[in-house]
Amino acid sequence: MNIENDVQGMALALEWAAKGMLITSPNPRVGCVLVKDGVVIGEGHTQPPGQAHAEVQALNDAMRRGNDVRGATAYVSLEPCSHFGRTPPCADTLIRAGIGKVVAALGDPNPLVGGQGFAKLRAAGIEVVTDVLASEAREMNIGFLSRMQRGRPWVRMKTAASLDGRTALYNGHSQWITSAEARDDGHRWRARACAILTGIGTVIEDNPQLTVRAIDTPRQPRRIVIDSRLQISPDARVLTGGGTWIVAAQSDPDKEARLRERGAEIIILPNTHGKVDLPLLMEELGRRQINELHVEAGFKLNGSLIREACVDELLVYLAPSLLGDAHGMFDLRALDSLDDRKRLSFHEIKQLGPDLRILARFI
Amino acid sequence: MNIENDVQGMALALEWAAKGMLITSPNPRVGCVLVKDGVVIGEGHTQPPGQAHAEVQALNDAMRRGNDVRGATAYVSLEPCSHFGRTPPCADTLIRAGIGKVVAALGDPNPLVGGQGFAKLRAAGIEVVTDVLASEAREMNIGFLSRMQRGRPWVRMKTAASLDGRTALYNGHSQWITSAEARDDGHRWRARACAILTGIGTVIEDNPQLTVRAIDTPRQPRRIVIDSRLQISPDARVLTGGGTWIVAAQSDPDKEARLRERGAEIIILPNTHGKVDLPLLMEELGRRQINELHVEAGFKLNGSLIREACVDELLVYLAPSLLGDAHGMFDLRALDSLDDRKRLSFHEIKQLGPDLRILARFI
Repeated sequence: MNIENDVQGMALALEWAAKGMLITSPNPRVGCVLVKDGVVIGEGHTQPPGQAHAEVQALNDAMRRGNDVRGATAYVSLEPCSHFGRTPPCADTLIRAGIGKVVAALGDPNPLVGGQGFAKLRAAGIEVVTDVLASEAREMNIGFLSRMQRGRPWVRMKTAASLDGRTALYNGHSQWITSAEARDDGHRWRARACAILTGIGTVIEDNPQLTVRAIDTPRQPRRIVIDSRLQISPDARVLTGGGTWIVAAQSDPDKEARLRERGAEIIILPNTHGKVDLPLLMEELGRRQINELHVEAGFKLNGSLIREACVDELLVYLAPSLLGDAHGMFDLRALDSLDDRKRLSFHEIKQLGPDLRILARFI
Repeated sequence: MNIENDVQGMALALEWAAKGMLITSPNPRVGCVLVKDGVVIGEGHTQPPGQAHAEVQALNDAMRRGNDVRGATAYVSLEPCSHFGRTPPCADTLIRAGIGKVVAALGDPNPLVGGQGFAKLRAAGIEVVTDVLASEAREMNIGFLSRMQRGRPWVRMKTAASLDGRTALYNGHSQWITSAEARDDGHRWRARACAILTGIGTVIEDNPQLTVRAIDTPRQPRRIVIDSRLQISPDARVLTGGGTWIVAAQSDPDKEARLRERGAEIIILPNTHGKVDLPLLMEELGRRQINELHVEAGFKLNGSLIREACVDELLVYLAPSLLGDAHGMFDLRALDSLDDRKRLSFHEIKQLGPDLRILARFI
């Protein structure tokens, strides 16, 4: 495949970035492609934390293939880093390798370091082009960008409903509203998230594992349960394997000890009404390096999260059926005026088997 | 434009059929294209009832253009008629004109006359090819086919809702859930219907005209109001211009007389519960030559029509907003089991400005 212009080069770099979709958390998904005289001579994507970034992967790939990278153009989907983290700065590595030109989709979203990678490269005499396929690159790292720029995760709330907007019968039956295709797709979204959040209601009613099973993944997202009064049973399946965070509004040392024995961590974050302070939790999850937060909760917690403006995006699977008088999607108060409705915009619509998948963003 | 095969010829005939979308009721929308040596020599579509059918229009068009139709191929989107109605049989006209070959999308759906047009043509030595783009042709005349084959109209129920499936606030405010694009599109669907049906609840609450205004149309659909107890005011705007059918469950000679003065016709069709017998009404509307029935009603009548299996298709405009605790789309009873849900299939999804249009069919 020949690369004839910067957009083509970046499109390929983004394809490589996507290959790191499930493994780079909490780092961004970055792809890098090295091109010389229109020929791709090295490719790579960011590895799990502590391992090589995309640029190093691509340089190593070129070396393995016996290619001389001096004077080549590097297409990177994010500004090369300029600081020592768990790995040395990629900007320095590109300079030392003799790269001639760097094309980046986006600057580093961290306002403290943004632009320093580019500055370093330019100071070394390397031509730098930016903002190529920027919006595609932003989508790829929407959670990382949210955390860097707003200090909290990108929150995606998943729900499955009938065409008349109902999620479950009043007797609680809800297992099979949507198709296997939709459920598998739901696991794909779970897999890319840093964490999956649910409420104690769902844990008590459905006792879910909240793991990714329908698709292969090298990493399971962290699980988070909102449980204001610490009602969770130490036998709950969501605790299996350890690492689950339980967020409560009140402490209960005995109960906490038993949960810690199951590998859980307890976070106490009350608001003034004796419930978990949800906006504060989002900030806490930002500090804990959660980029994308995938919410699969019930009617009540869904409603609270939306009312408290903690949700960025709805991922709605709509089944071609009518359930009639049954539970709605979100517990939201009655409005006095249509002006008070929550506004969104449809971001993407897709047919999945018999169902429809709607991505809608709050505006 | 050159026609190189039967599919191309039929696609053009269907384009012509679509030009008659708003005028042929209760006749089907038919297009006819005459092709000789790959060249289109005549085109036309069915005119309003009593005027020329598509075949005659195309033959006249060819004559006007000075073209010799002898030996030409006629592409028609429906089997040419073989009986004397308000116009002479088109099959005879094609034979007399010396047409060499007839390609039809569909046979006549009327089981009493289906195939006779083809038989006549074949008996005259004309080659006949059928079932070219049959499914597209079926969509074009879905209402006419329904009436011919099932004795009742194709019933399309329009509703506009928020993403959480709500149509109006409990205080009744609902005017602007969807965008101007969606509302204009709704009038396009009104315009193609033979009749628009609503309930007395909507008439009392909104006092709608129930006419086509957002787009130009040479013909206004008939208006039908379900009004079991004849509560409608003689001043209701839906009566303006006359021709409205009021369907009641009980007679009231004085009230009926006043409504007749306004040009309305009263149809009494009670069921055993003292309400209008909806399935019986659908049969009556079939007898009255309603092909496509467009329903714009409220929560209650919508629910009754769905529960009594009178609806074939939902036309749902989904707005990117959440209304929370508000009126649902259809008044359907709570279910005990998901097996009892009403099943549909998504037929078509389209983005219309900020909104989504979903066509879903009951299966």
